[in-house]
Amino acid sequence: MDKKDWKHKKLESLTKTLVKSYDKQKGINQIDGLNLPNSDHVYEIIHDFFKIIFPGFIGRESITSSGVSYYVGTILEGLFDKLYYQVNRALEYRCPNKTVKACKTCDCSSRAYGITVDVLEKIPHIRGLLREDVKAAFDGDPAAQSFDEIIVSYPYVKAITVHRIAHLLYKQNVPMIPRIMAEWAHKETGIDIHPGANIGHAFFIDHGTGVVIGETTTIGNNVKLYHGVTLGARSTADVEELRGAKRHPTIEAFVTIYPNATILGGDTVIGKGATIGGNTWITSSVKPGTVVVNPKPDLIVKEKRK
Amino acid sequence: MDKKDWKHKKLESLTKTLVKSYDKQKGINQIDGLNLPNSDHVYEIIHDFFKIIFPGFIGRESITSSGVSYYVGTILEGLFDKLYYQVNRALEYRCPNKTVKACKTCDCSSRAYGITVDVLEKIPHIRGLLREDVKAAFDGDPAAQSFDEIIVSYPYVKAITVHRIAHLLYKQNVPMIPRIMAEWAHKETGIDIHPGANIGHAFFIDHGTGVVIGETTTIGNNVKLYHGVTLGARSTADVEELRGAKRHPTIEAFVTIYPNATILGGDTVIGKGATIGGNTWITSSVKPGTVVVNPKPDLIVKEKRK
Amino acid sequence: MDKKDWKHKKLESLTKTLVKSYDKQKGINQIDGLNLPNSDHVYEIIHDFFKIIFPGFIGRESITSSGVSYYVGTILEGLFDKLYYQVNRALEYRCPNKTVKACKTCDCSSRAYGITVDVLEKIPHIRGLLREDVKAAFDGDPAAQSFDEIIVSYPYVKAITVHRIAHLLYKQNVPMIPRIMAEWAHKETGIDIHPGANIGHAFFIDHGTGVVIGETTTIGNNVKLYHGVTLGARSTADVEELRGAKRHPTIEAFVTIYPNATILGGDTVIGKGATIGGNTWITSSVKPGTVVVNPKPDLIVKEKRK
Repeated sequence: MDKKDWKHKKLESLTKTLVKSYDKQKGINQIDGLNLPNSDHVYEIIHDFFKIIFPGFIGRESITSSGVSYYVGTILEGLFDKLYYQVNRALEYRCPNKTVKACKTCDCSSRAYGITVDVLEKIPHIRGLLREDVKAAFDGDPAAQSFDEIIVSYPYVKAITVHRIAHLLYKQNVPMIPRIMAEWAHKETGIDIHPGANIGHAFFIDHGTGVVIGETTTIGNNVKLYHGVTLGARSTADVEELRGAKRHPTIEAFVTIYPNATILGGDTVIGKGATIGGNTWITSSVKPGTVVVNPKPDLIVKEKRK
Repeated sequence: MDKKDWKHKKLESLTKTLVKSYDKQKGINQIDGLNLPNSDHVYEIIHDFFKIIFPGFIGRESITSSGVSYYVGTILEGLFDKLYYQVNRALEYRCPNKTVKACKTCDCSSRAYGITVDVLEKIPHIRGLLREDVKAAFDGDPAAQSFDEIIVSYPYVKAITVHRIAHLLYKQNVPMIPRIMAEWAHKETGIDIHPGANIGHAFFIDHGTGVVIGETTTIGNNVKLYHGVTLGARSTADVEELRGAKRHPTIEAFVTIYPNATILGGDTVIGKGATIGGNTWITSSVKPGTVVVNPKPDLIVKEKRK
Repeated sequence: MDKKDWKHKKLESLTKTLVKSYDKQKGINQIDGLNLPNSDHVYEIIHDFFKIIFPGFIGRESITSSGVSYYVGTILEGLFDKLYYQVNRALEYRCPNKTVKACKTCDCSSRAYGITVDVLEKIPHIRGLLREDVKAAFDGDPAAQSFDEIIVSYPYVKAITVHRIAHLLYKQNVPMIPRIMAEWAHKETGIDIHPGANIGHAFFIDHGTGVVIGETTTIGNNVKLYHGVTLGARSTADVEELRGAKRHPTIEAFVTIYPNATILGGDTVIGKGATIGGNTWITSSVKPGTVVVNPKPDLIVKEKRK
């Protein structure tokens, strides 16, 4: 059968089979439903935030003080529309009253409005936090040359910027969008921060690939992590029981955690100023001001077989 | 010398030197050769698969039941052409008869046709598998809110979807395209699954960054992995001897493997229902129904020097 | 308040607040300043390098021997302009004389010219190195089928290609651009190589996710790494003291380092031909020709609770 035949014979039957399978396999189709938040649009929103949070660093435009109000106003206006629209979709999508599309008693739209205004009004505050984060990177990494270099080339700047925005939406119970944002940052940086995590001021992650920070983690001020650090949940049999519970550790202020350390458990507290060595496996609390490291390993050294 | 001079003087000589080096340094140029499969086009193919596997989730369109046949038919027709074209290129590229371009006895084109039809006809089957995978994520992760959220924001959905397609092409001995697909998923998610790996139903990887699953790995049904898990080969001196041999472990059904565990060797079997603790290093088989963990570490705790 | 009201009332005040915060929060804005190197343009430069380093592999064009001079010449001309422009921006941005924009004594422009010509003239040399790197991948990985497959689907090819270019710019003291390049590769591959690292011939990284290679690392010829390997600095209190010092290890020729090994310290030397086992933690030198592995772990095996 040649290609032309395929189009006549198989294309039609395959289309029918596939469309039929959409009816049977519920849960992984989204047809005739309410609109989900759209990932591509959420990525545009993230990009707009970067443009007004780090003006002149991101994007191709250069900015002058005479043009800056126009620049910011234009982006903010578009950002308002996009963010409102996606938040509204997310709220409607999960709205218990929205089993019929035209529900008139629903307050999704006004909630979306309030959330959008709230998040946009917090941008100056977020910028203040991010300035401290960038300073923490500069203070914490001997390879850093300047704030500028950190902003244009350190992956964790993307991760923490997105987290500080996604966390606001998470706290307002916006469905799905916070995780779409967090996964964008994960994809770009290898740093996987659940939007639920509470992260203090002056936070820094060096290198970053493989870092996992769970939903109910609490991190104090001036904490520094290296790549491969897991702040996770202890293993457990009963997933349903854990939904919503405090499952991830608490890291107090001025703690440093070296590469590939694993710290697990909702009641594990790493005390103020502690230092956690690389590759350690920590499942219980560590006292403030202590240093916890693995014992010097008894490495086996052999001559090579010839 | 100013820039204009460069264009007159150096550009010409540098172009000559570079073109000459293409003759000398064989193996990293592709000039006058048959066409390789094109990575950008393979990425478009992946995108088309996502659109018809998860209709309404990916892309900007929303889909209605009256329009769905048209939507699917249009994508399938384009996907057929693109997939056929790339598979044909890949087969011709490696075809032993194709040292001359116009070989007439070659069956590359009809093989490409058969493979393309076969893969497209398996889409409903793949969708069935993926539905079980998404359900496994929901059942296995206390942070998951809904199937929808998993599809739009869990990176492993990309990795397992691409794997289930790439594995079909791998089994049909299509050169290069399966690995280009797998590397796209690796780039997007940090999850590196060789297209040769045999993976059962209801598979879930949480977080995912740093997971490596080797070519000859076998994974049973209902297996769950966390980030940083390596299912790899034992180290060895003789690479040539290993090409094609079973080098990677077998993971039986209902096994859970916690973060950063490393399991090595083609004769290593993790028995049904076993649980492998985080950070473990496993180079021999584990009995069904057992739990294997590292001993509680003798961490050294010191006061900080003042 | 409805959306229209927002635009009248809040948009204006929020814009004002935000613009005002740009004055207060110095260091994370770039307004009225000299132009920073632009990341998007640096990414285009990287893409051009790939096109002429691996002609016919990257991009959608196929190349014939009659058209190759035109192809190369066109790309080189554009690449010269883009690279010159960005290097010039980077030099001016950090130029001590450039506090006034119109400084006339400054040699930034002629330095940028010299650097650009130097880097472009080294492309044939870089191609020679990369051919050895690709061959090292083929010789070192039993899953590799051909040079072609490695070039189109192995992530480390991106990482080492970008590193060999970025390192040239680093040695010429070009600010920021080398790190923007390295972070592009990090984002694409999960491999984080500081542009300062000195890497010998025939280098190969398998899988790659999570690899970190620090600024002052030295790597000899024929070295092979697996995913998750850290070549890092020892922890230390005084960051300022370390800026510029040799902080990262020296890996001599013919060394193999298995997954997730961590090797730390500026005076740590891994001797010629040594093999470092997976998951090891190395903070002191290893003699040439030896094999260093962890002791067989005393894993705890328990029956599962019923």
